[in-house]
Amino acid sequence: MGSPVHRVSLGDTWSRQMHPDIESERYMQSFDVERLTNILDGGAQNTALRRKVESIIHSYPEFSCKDNYFMTQNERYKAAMRRAFHIRLIARHLGWLEDGRELGYAYRSLSGDVALNIHRVFLRALRSLGSEEQIAKWDPLCKNIQIIATYAQTELGHGTYLQGLETEATYDAATQEFVIHSPTLTATKWWPGDCEYPSTPLPYLSPSRRMCSHLHLLQGIIVGDIGPKMDFDQTDNGFLQLNHVLPDGTYVKLGTAQSNYLPMVVVRVELLSGEVLPILQKACVIAMRYSVIRRQSRLRPSDPEAKVLDYQTQQQKLFPQLAISYAFHFLAVSLLEFFQHSYTAILNRDFSFLPELHALSTGMKAMMSEFCTQGAEMCRRACGGHGYSKLSGLPSLVTKLSASCTYEGENTVLYLQVARFLVKSYLQTQMSPGSTPQRSLPPSVAYLTAPDLARCPAQRAADFLCPELYTTAWAHVAARLIKDSVQHLQTLMQSGADQHEAWNQTTVIHLQAAKAHCYYVTVKGFTEALEKLENEPAIQQVLKRLCDLHAIHGILTNSGDFLHDAFLSGDQVDMARTAYLDLLRLIRKDAILLTDAFDFTDQCLNSALGCYDGNVYERLFQWAQKSPTNTQENPAYEEYIRPLLQSWKSKL
Amino acid sequence: MGSPVHRVSLGDTWSRQMHPDIESERYMQSFDVERLTNILDGGAQNTALRRKVESIIHSYPEFSCKDNYFMTQNERYKAAMRRAFHIRLIARHLGWLEDGRELGYAYRSLSGDVALNIHRVFLRALRSLGSEEQIAKWDPLCKNIQIIATYAQTELGHGTYLQGLETEATYDAATQEFVIHSPTLTATKWWPGDCEYPSTPLPYLSPSRRMCSHLHLLQGIIVGDIGPKMDFDQTDNGFLQLNHVLPDGTYVKLGTAQSNYLPMVVVRVELLSGEVLPILQKACVIAMRYSVIRRQSRLRPSDPEAKVLDYQTQQQKLFPQLAISYAFHFLAVSLLEFFQHSYTAILNRDFSFLPELHALSTGMKAMMSEFCTQGAEMCRRACGGHGYSKLSGLPSLVTKLSASCTYEGENTVLYLQVARFLVKSYLQTQMSPGSTPQRSLPPSVAYLTAPDLARCPAQRAADFLCPELYTTAWAHVAARLIKDSVQHLQTLMQSGADQHEAWNQTTVIHLQAAKAHCYYVTVKGFTEALEKLENEPAIQQVLKRLCDLHAIHGILTNSGDFLHDAFLSGDQVDMARTAYLDLLRLIRKDAILLTDAFDFTDQCLNSALGCYDGNVYERLFQWAQKSPTNTQENPAYEEYIRPLLQSWKSKL
Repeated sequence: MGSPVHRVSLGDTWSRQMHPDIESERYMQSFDVERLTNILDGGAQNTALRRKVESIIHSYPEFSCKDNYFMTQNERYKAAMRRAFHIRLIARHLGWLEDGRELGYAYRSLSGDVALNIHRVFLRALRSLGSEEQIAKWDPLCKNIQIIATYAQTELGHGTYLQGLETEATYDAATQEFVIHSPTLTATKWWPGDCEYPSTPLPYLSPSRRMCSHLHLLQGIIVGDIGPKMDFDQTDNGFLQLNHVLPDGTYVKLGTAQSNYLPMVVVRVELLSGEVLPILQKACVIAMRYSVIRRQSRLRPSDPEAKVLDYQTQQQKLFPQLAISYAFHFLAVSLLEFFQHSYTAILNRDFSFLPELHALSTGMKAMMSEFCTQGAEMCRRACGGHGYSKLSGLPSLVTKLSASCTYEGENTVLYLQVARFLVKSYLQTQMSPGSTPQRSLPPSVAYLTAPDLARCPAQRAADFLCPELYTTAWAHVAARLIKDSVQHLQTLMQSGADQHEAWNQTTVIHLQAAKAHCYYVTVKGFTEALEKLENEPAIQQVLKRLCDLHAIHGILTNSGDFLHDAFLSGDQVDMARTAYLDLLRLIRKDAILLTDAFDFTDQCLNSALGCYDGNVYERLFQWAQKSPTNTQENPAYEEYIRPLLQSWKSKL
Repeated sequence: MGSPVHRVSLGDTWSRQMHPDIESERYMQSFDVERLTNILDGGAQNTALRRKVESIIHSYPEFSCKDNYFMTQNERYKAAMRRAFHIRLIARHLGWLEDGRELGYAYRSLSGDVALNIHRVFLRALRSLGSEEQIAKWDPLCKNIQIIATYAQTELGHGTYLQGLETEATYDAATQEFVIHSPTLTATKWWPGDCEYPSTPLPYLSPSRRMCSHLHLLQGIIVGDIGPKMDFDQTDNGFLQLNHVLPDGTYVKLGTAQSNYLPMVVVRVELLSGEVLPILQKACVIAMRYSVIRRQSRLRPSDPEAKVLDYQTQQQKLFPQLAISYAFHFLAVSLLEFFQHSYTAILNRDFSFLPELHALSTGMKAMMSEFCTQGAEMCRRACGGHGYSKLSGLPSLVTKLSASCTYEGENTVLYLQVARFLVKSYLQTQMSPGSTPQRSLPPSVAYLTAPDLARCPAQRAADFLCPELYTTAWAHVAARLIKDSVQHLQTLMQSGADQHEAWNQTTVIHLQAAKAHCYYVTVKGFTEALEKLENEPAIQQVLKRLCDLHAIHGILTNSGDFLHDAFLSGDQVDMARTAYLDLLRLIRKDAILLTDAFDFTDQCLNSALGCYDGNVYERLFQWAQKSPTNTQENPAYEEYIRPLLQSWKSKL
């Protein structure tokens, strides 16, 4: 039944007793929470290892994030660097491997507030893209932090569109060296993390500082801080100008485009499952726990005030986010399995998986970052005024997610890459009319050739609780929108537009198709994960409700797409809504347990609203006392307030 | 043709020359921008007065917000207090009245970064709710800042639900005084602005500090800071505990509930038009100007890189926000007129307008804060990575708006108040079946009895450019959803649920109806404003496109509601989409001019991306140099980085 002791360890006096309003939520358990945690961890042994790592991390005061909310930018930067320093110390001491599970769990428990993350990205890029000679030289230097690396790709004038980058690398035959140069202001590298202060080499393997003395920049290199950002104070995002700098090494194209591409895809999916999704999950935990403590208004005049989670509108805000948290978890697991499978194929020089791999990873990046950001913001607002306090933990979760919509590829651009894959896949189905296309379609778009129903067969609300029914419905809508987008494209081209103009004039339509396809993929992935839980009927049942909710919530928020060709009738949409409202009521009783199962420690949540014991107000009040303004003089009193107040004696 | 000199006054060297990419946007003008500015200001004389006030404000370095982005919390608080001090000095010097236009324009140009705003709220509350004796005593003290007031309503445990507030006011007959007391931790007043430091009296007119010496709190009062929030560093939000404190005065209920209520409504609408809407407008200006400077990718392989505003997907992100900016402007104007009208009626003891007044002001508060927040966030994301930099101005605009979704009444609660009004109005239409109801419906819900079409008559895309057609369509959908929500309510009650249970089980449906009604109100208001512009055909034409876009965008994003009962067919939705995509293309050429017309000065925008001259990258680069981290030593070098880097010599 889990280990509450593990979860509650903030050491406050009230932690010793549970708030009765949250205790009552855990009294009747319709499923084994600990077992669900094990499933999410990929096995009980992983849960045990994760908890061991977390208790090690939490035992060092150096890793505490508790005072983060009161720190200045410098203090947060320094604290993040302190954590980066100590985690390497501990990893070395305990023999944790660079790519091992332990370090992954350690980073999860530190919630991203650790410096030198870009150094890790660089190390991965080096290992997958470098020559043997380069790896032999730089890998040990990197691993032992004899150098600190950044990854400088984005420029002041260009981001996602890599072809537009202006930085020049010119080969000088005389010296047999490359010269790296920023020819314009807009070519200034902008945003690279750990750039201003600590970094020593660049990804084109250009050194920025002398290795013997870190403080001196090499000639021709100008670096600086790009100024304040939304949150992310702990990261030192810099700019970098290079005036005819000589990097190390010779440019040799290594491997195939395909094999170079795969590690990037894996990094992207690991980023999603390791850093993006947990943030939404934490937001769900915090908002859900707060919503059983917070009481507001009365359901009946004679009743006591109700828990806000008992309001249908609050359930509508939070439960779809909980459902998405689970949907994305299972999707990420299955994607990583698919990537392992593809990697083996690629090693055997079978590149046929790559287009789908690309479409899946870009689509999932766009959809997960978009939905997680929306979802966490919904959780934040569902906490009313207190969700606006940084002490709730929610503002920093939202801003972290918000950045993920832009970095690693801007979402609109990524969705349109998915759309291109969908257009190609659709055209492939049209190549040999009347017969099956010669090459079979990748699994994720196989629905384009599957037999299709013109009308949904649902006759009552309960029919919508059928995975096959709603998966088919999503496949139908995605296929219709893809077909529609291709037809618009072709119509424009037939009326004289060239293909580029036609594409731009239909991107809004392509976007809609790509989003429907991605939603279908999440629904399909969730239903497949459920099938594998046949030996866990209680857990299967409770997760199926979330899967149903996810699918139906999507149908209702996009009902126009389902009604458009009368696949659903208005009456059927009403049935779906009835099923949806019933699900909210059913999920209500398991809501706290379903968030408990994510098994975040109180330290990791770092939220005055979200602790396991539910002592919200005591903690919020006590944490607020730590505000530095509570122990200082009013900085404006002598200069402004006293003269204002005294102006009635002597006129201003 | 406006006064570029007025707009561009940041004094940078590049301000003297326009970026050619933004200059070309202003070359061909299909309408008179200055004339549109005058219309938005309510007359050319107002424009002139506003600009005069702005140039006065901008001439004082005390009011500059330029360094805001680099300030600590204390520095921002002090700067806001400095502005509050100096604006009173100037107002007194120039004879600006407390409720005069000049002061309104001055606050608009200061973008809300001014302290003591709650003092102004208190003054208004005093004037509208106080007795003659109270006003005579406290008004001059307030006006001359002999006291500084806060407004302490929200408590740690309660916000929007006022009946749940726990603070006690007990009358002591012996002393003929009220005793104010916080009986529990959750009764602690939480969030009041200007509370911790400067405030002297409380709204129940309880003094918190001795008037002769500001620094000493009265016995029994504990105040403090509630800790860090998302942005709003300049505001000192405090908490306050009262242990049997004696306030001044005797409680006498004054006036009628109705007359006491109206000033609150006016404050709410002025807040929306004066502080909420301008923030969305600024976000539009910034994102639009950046989008004609930023270039990314090529529309055709042979072309130069395209302005991002030339991409259909970027237009889809920004133009609906521009349309909403205008829609809300005209709506706020007409609401204020309606309130003046109602106020006259109330003075004549005609209270019949009040239910509609309440529904309109709550609905508009919810919808404007929700849409403005979404819209500004959309603008922020449309600026990619640079929209994440505080120097863009966008992060602080978004967080300011985000708060407006919660303060002055949480939006879901407010929408449900609108829904109750709609249910009552609908039931009124049903009271005398077959005949007209005896009392006529308020104008905003008159559509509930208007003749209704079962099918939309549109036959081609251009038919959707007809205000009557889309206003009717919105009325149809709102009426259907209201009817649907009432029927669900009645069905549940007939099946045995009591009215409270039935209400809670249908709130998701009521919410949907209330939102459709509010959208209808904005569309209707925009079309009525257009009709009044018949003498300005060029401006009427360009604004009509925005009105069309606003109405059709709403139809497309809620197409399920229109398809549900086959009011629209799938083919008609496609026609609406065609009309929508055509509108994007047409609005494109006027986009910069339509944002220029808001006439925000560069100082007021305070954005490296949004300046009038379009010199985005130069300004971003130069502003970033001001980051304090660029002139300091690395705060983590000696302690963490050097030991890390040197660990290859002597193992860690």
